[in-house]
Amino acid sequence: MDIHQILRVVNVIVFCVCFVNGYITYIAIRLPLQGEMSAPGSPWPHPKELNSTTQTLSLDMADFEIGSNVIGCDVIEKGIARHKAMLGFGHKDDTLHAVEDLQIHVENTSCQAYPYLGMDESYTLEADQHATLRANSIWGVLRGLETFSQLVYTTATGQARINKTSIVDEPRFAHRGIMLDTARHFIPLPVLLKNLDAMSYNKFNVFHWHIVDDQSFPYQSIRFPGLSHKGAYSPVHVYSQTDIKTVVEYARLRGIRVIVEFDTPGHTQSWGKFDRDLLTPCWHNGHKGEAEYNRHGEYELMNPMLNSTFTFLEELFSEVTSVFPDDYVHLGMDEAYHYCWASNPDVRAFLTNVLGLNASDFSGLEQYYIRRVLDIVSKTHKKTIIWEDPIEKGLKADKDVLVEVWRNEQNWTNNMEEVIQRGYSAILSSCWYLNYISYGQDWRQYYSCDPHHFNGTTQEKARVVGGEACVWSEYIDATNLLSRLWPRASAVAERLWSPGHINNTDDASFRLDQQRCRMVRRGIPAEPILNGFCGDYDLGMETEAVQPSNICTNTATTVPKSNIVLTVIGVSVLLQTVRILRVD
Amino acid sequence: MDIHQILRVVNVIVFCVCFVNGYITYIAIRLPLQGEMSAPGSPWPHPKELNSTTQTLSLDMADFEIGSNVIGCDVIEKGIARHKAMLGFGHKDDTLHAVEDLQIHVENTSCQAYPYLGMDESYTLEADQHATLRANSIWGVLRGLETFSQLVYTTATGQARINKTSIVDEPRFAHRGIMLDTARHFIPLPVLLKNLDAMSYNKFNVFHWHIVDDQSFPYQSIRFPGLSHKGAYSPVHVYSQTDIKTVVEYARLRGIRVIVEFDTPGHTQSWGKFDRDLLTPCWHNGHKGEAEYNRHGEYELMNPMLNSTFTFLEELFSEVTSVFPDDYVHLGMDEAYHYCWASNPDVRAFLTNVLGLNASDFSGLEQYYIRRVLDIVSKTHKKTIIWEDPIEKGLKADKDVLVEVWRNEQNWTNNMEEVIQRGYSAILSSCWYLNYISYGQDWRQYYSCDPHHFNGTTQEKARVVGGEACVWSEYIDATNLLSRLWPRASAVAERLWSPGHINNTDDASFRLDQQRCRMVRRGIPAEPILNGFCGDYDLGMETEAVQPSNICTNTATTVPKSNIVLTVIGVSVLLQTVRILRVD
Repeated sequence: MDIHQILRVVNVIVFCVCFVNGYITYIAIRLPLQGEMSAPGSPWPHPKELNSTTQTLSLDMADFEIGSNVIGCDVIEKGIARHKAMLGFGHKDDTLHAVEDLQIHVENTSCQAYPYLGMDESYTLEADQHATLRANSIWGVLRGLETFSQLVYTTATGQARINKTSIVDEPRFAHRGIMLDTARHFIPLPVLLKNLDAMSYNKFNVFHWHIVDDQSFPYQSIRFPGLSHKGAYSPVHVYSQTDIKTVVEYARLRGIRVIVEFDTPGHTQSWGKFDRDLLTPCWHNGHKGEAEYNRHGEYELMNPMLNSTFTFLEELFSEVTSVFPDDYVHLGMDEAYHYCWASNPDVRAFLTNVLGLNASDFSGLEQYYIRRVLDIVSKTHKKTIIWEDPIEKGLKADKDVLVEVWRNEQNWTNNMEEVIQRGYSAILSSCWYLNYISYGQDWRQYYSCDPHHFNGTTQEKARVVGGEACVWSEYIDATNLLSRLWPRASAVAERLWSPGHINNTDDASFRLDQQRCRMVRRGIPAEPILNGFCGDYDLGMETEAVQPSNICTNTATTVPKSNIVLTVIGVSVLLQTVRILRVD
Repeated sequence: MDIHQILRVVNVIVFCVCFVNGYITYIAIRLPLQGEMSAPGSPWPHPKELNSTTQTLSLDMADFEIGSNVIGCDVIEKGIARHKAMLGFGHKDDTLHAVEDLQIHVENTSCQAYPYLGMDESYTLEADQHATLRANSIWGVLRGLETFSQLVYTTATGQARINKTSIVDEPRFAHRGIMLDTARHFIPLPVLLKNLDAMSYNKFNVFHWHIVDDQSFPYQSIRFPGLSHKGAYSPVHVYSQTDIKTVVEYARLRGIRVIVEFDTPGHTQSWGKFDRDLLTPCWHNGHKGEAEYNRHGEYELMNPMLNSTFTFLEELFSEVTSVFPDDYVHLGMDEAYHYCWASNPDVRAFLTNVLGLNASDFSGLEQYYIRRVLDIVSKTHKKTIIWEDPIEKGLKADKDVLVEVWRNEQNWTNNMEEVIQRGYSAILSSCWYLNYISYGQDWRQYYSCDPHHFNGTTQEKARVVGGEACVWSEYIDATNLLSRLWPRASAVAERLWSPGHINNTDDASFRLDQQRCRMVRRGIPAEPILNGFCGDYDLGMETEAVQPSNICTNTATTVPKSNIVLTVIGVSVLLQTVRILRVD
């Protein structure tokens, strides 16, 4: 098939297949798109093995069941209900055989309480008249249900279709995360939940919650309510304990771990609004508590000289590790600039008199601080993650401390090699700072970054447990988080889930376009990746007073455009959020 | 006041003044913000003359009237109703005198049908116990009402306040536009209307509607319904005549002109789906209608050899100029690449045999085409705007053709000088292509671009009638348009409205932050410009089942956060849109 033919096919398909499909286009003839068009109903991220046929089945939701051999497990029951709702678009086609049921067979039917690092997410899927989803654990079922719901598409006349397909799938990396910073801007609860939805559509399994920072302290502590009372932007810019339970539960039902980060010893100015003594007094011009601009503030960095600092941290982390059930807690430990410590004569005295170190060994002081915090947290039986900085400064920590590599966006391989060669396991985020934006298809650079593309042995590479797309929120809040993150983070999702050889960006663009339209249809305002449109639906095109049951049921054929009663941007968002609050 | 004191004041203000104010912050002490903090209730764009006092009045909406000497003019009546609704937040403070009424005095009480280039938008405003707004025309009243509603703010305890203020104001430039491309992506009607809201909050007065292009033809023609039937992305990606009337009416009530663009002879591939003969057959390898990739398509550029092309255009523009009431129509005429014409032997014969030109004088052919189209449109008694390209290629046109300078983003001054020196009036958009994005505060570069910063006499500079922020929609649709455009376009708004000496970006950042929070409160998802928050409200933080009457009435003090019944992203959007559809 030469390029002329391909382009004609593209044009034909544009007006033949609708709904959850996207149609990227360029000035179609002069500048044709590169890469291989994807079939409708192509899943994202790409499964490990996918055998798709052109044999097409119909789907009639009135006559379709999902059954499972797991009894009384809310993860499975609510997962099935969620995906049945997502499948509820399109109508049957009596000229085709229909897929009548999907039977789920789980090897280990235990309803595990929470997802965890290394949980078994593998599954096999046979899409046929009697479809079968097999998995070893309930977490694999969730991933398989997501894939199944992505295989379904509709025709131009609104008929639901699924092609006979065989899939064998498992993730390439165990840790596939999104890091959100909720301190530079507060991200309201409904947006966090919608982001968890989007994560589940892309098989992410970790929400790394960078919950506090210099700018604000929105975490409402039980033991120390003054932290948010004084440190939050305002009384309403706070995550209550109820909010946090809602997030953790919403994530659990989607097989997503919530790893909270309380970043110290730097990035803690908001903590000082609660208790200034938690921070080190900085000196300038012979005065205590005076800032030297562009070097240090009046008070900053946790104060390692006072035992009260560590007592406080012990109490705080004791609370935090019970509020967040995941096995891991993230301790930050990045960007501990030493200017403030160096300005303080008491710190220098402490270094020599108490620690027996050189008076200017601030790295030694940093390590002293970190080791004490690691000891505190180890008493809670949690495992820990830290940013790479202290390791590069020579910190010796237990080898089960996970190290997150974030420096050198373009040239992170040296950083990764150093961390790995020192014997640690690692998470990569350097190349995936999605808050940085540039014009055009920057998803391609995220897609091209591979956590294994560094010099190391097979054993060493096996110590890379995954990666995270990071969103620092200097310029991000509820107004733009979801549209900025999606579908750019989807590129990271496929890199972390799919085999490394699935790496052709041109081919991927067609599937990514489908995936972004799928997300739009499901209420995520994922931005476009190029000229084009989403089937017969784009955000803002709801054309009647929509009831919750109408989600995914509007089609151009059934709803005349002239019937505008309530045309609303974000009705999907509204409805989805109403549903969210039931925490199904 | 030294920097320490300023920063303490900043911190105090953060927790004292709420609501429509924004609080940008940096890691507050180590990296302080530059510039002068703005008082609460600072208007954007900055008025020509603003005398604000610290004498504060209360506002009690139950006991506040807006009266006018204009009878039976919907622009005034609906404008007053709109602004009263926007003022309906905060409660009274009995310890202060209240502003009791705002009396509007218009010199020319004529209820002019449509806004127009050069309409009188000047006004004076005295905010006092009996406030007064004086204007020469109804359009000045709209601008003054907008300013008045921006002067009102609330305290931390929810009390509505306005400082005694005197304002003398008028725009620096007459043409202050936003150009939206609705062809690369379809932008649904509700989003267009919300964008008109945002424009009115920033005193823009032109919506330049780039309605069709190569990629799609969403304009539903009365005379040629096949244009959108064949050329739109899908049957629902279409602007009906009703939709267009809605847009024009919604804009009129806000003093915004709608200038439609039908761009020819290039950018017309979607037209060819309706009638291929409208386009020129391109030749390649001796075959007619064959593409040469990266040079030309199979058919492109309007066909200037056929009289039927011009007959068609005459009928189309006859319709278009009656559908869009503005005095101007935009004819495009940009980027007419000659490859296709050059490939076609019939074109070369036409050049010599019919036009008597050199067989390779494709610029001559382009000018022949443009002059015929200008003649056609002049018969409709419309004035015309074209992009700069043909003028630079030597086109001689009537001097009342307005020329839009768009080339050379960073070095547009030569382009402007050429257009102006050839005797034309101009609109600047080169430095305001807001679809291009970069990380951080790129609004500062837009703010720093001044349409008068080129070499020219005072008379020449007076021929710059204004500017436009352009949004080409390769990567933009309903998911991200509003958050990407606002508040970045606000920077352009101030440059075009306010005196040229209001140009300190550091000072502006505080007022822009207020303006962005004002927009968020009014339902525009304007993105943040730096770390911080909006008073006691950010998008996504609605905390009860909101009724339309609740717009701008939720405060932290009256609505406990625990009362979450319906927490919704974009409820404001929903409610605003419900209101929109009444076209008030």
